[in-house]
Amino acid sequence: MKHLTRTIIGVLAISAGATALLADGHASEKALKDALKARQSHMSLYSFNLGALGAMAKGDAPYDAAAAQAAADNLATLANMSQAGYWLPGTDSDAMEGSRSLPAIWEEGSKAQALSVAFAEAATTMQSLAGTDLETLQGGMKALGDGCSACHEDYRKPR
Amino acid sequence: MKHLTRTIIGVLAISAGATALLADGHASEKALKDALKARQSHMSLYSFNLGALGAMAKGDAPYDAAAAQAAADNLATLANMSQAGYWLPGTDSDAMEGSRSLPAIWEEGSKAQALSVAFAEAATTMQSLAGTDLETLQGGMKALGDGCSACHEDYRKPR
Repeated sequence: MKHLTRTIIGVLAISAGATALLADGHASEKALKDALKARQSHMSLYSFNLGALGAMAKGDAPYDAAAAQAAADNLATLANMSQAGYWLPGTDSDAMEGSRSLPAIWEEGSKAQALSVAFAEAATTMQSLAGTDLETLQGGMKALGDGCSACHEDYRKPR
Repeated sequence: MKHLTRTIIGVLAISAGATALLADGHASEKALKDALKARQSHMSLYSFNLGALGAMAKGDAPYDAAAAQAAADNLATLANMSQAGYWLPGTDSDAMEGSRSLPAIWEEGSKAQALSVAFAEAATTMQSLAGTDLETLQGGMKALGDGCSACHEDYRKPR
């Protein structure tokens, strides 16, 4: 879990570290678009792997220990990756079309970082459950789903 | 490197393990679309992290050891994740609009798996170089770029 603390932590500190900046120190329009696309891609991979686990948990797909483990491994891996490069200031839903990330993520008192760490913990727990059997997988789904919604409820703009 | 052999290896074997199947044993239209979207998201994250390294290597962004290491860690992590769930038969460029994955990927004699493993090795090598200094990062870029193009040349449909 060596990457755990990097998940979103340090977003504001690292911010545009790897990003080409304009003369005034702001990220370019392209850099902001690239960051948004990468962030949405990351979310899409969460969704895909969560969907695979959910389908098995609900009985929509047959339980397959290897596939469940692979999906849980992927989720935990993604949740523990550094996302600092994507969460650039200036990519919130007020600033960019297509962004559903509320400005509150970047505001003082934001709990987004803490929620991201909590989600990574839930995903890591699921990693130890998913490959055991269907019942054990089912037992871990609520905590994982709650980990998603905790952040989405407060920090994702409704459609 | 424990995930190395899972990268694409076993695509045909595992195929739709975690996917809801129709009565005839084929993946549903939605499952195929979800797989394509996840695959493209994965590629988009490759591109984002490679772009961060490339910008520094070319001098378009200042060298930042922590950001370079984070991008290289992400690339290696992604390259070593299980992608078996995405590479479903029936998601090639002949079968699906928006797919640029040539049918040859799934055909006998395909080198896609081997190229994917080679790319994961190049990304893992970059992981040991990127955070050292700019010159060392630059020295690793060609192998990484070659790893991308090796697969794109033979297995990605031109635009």
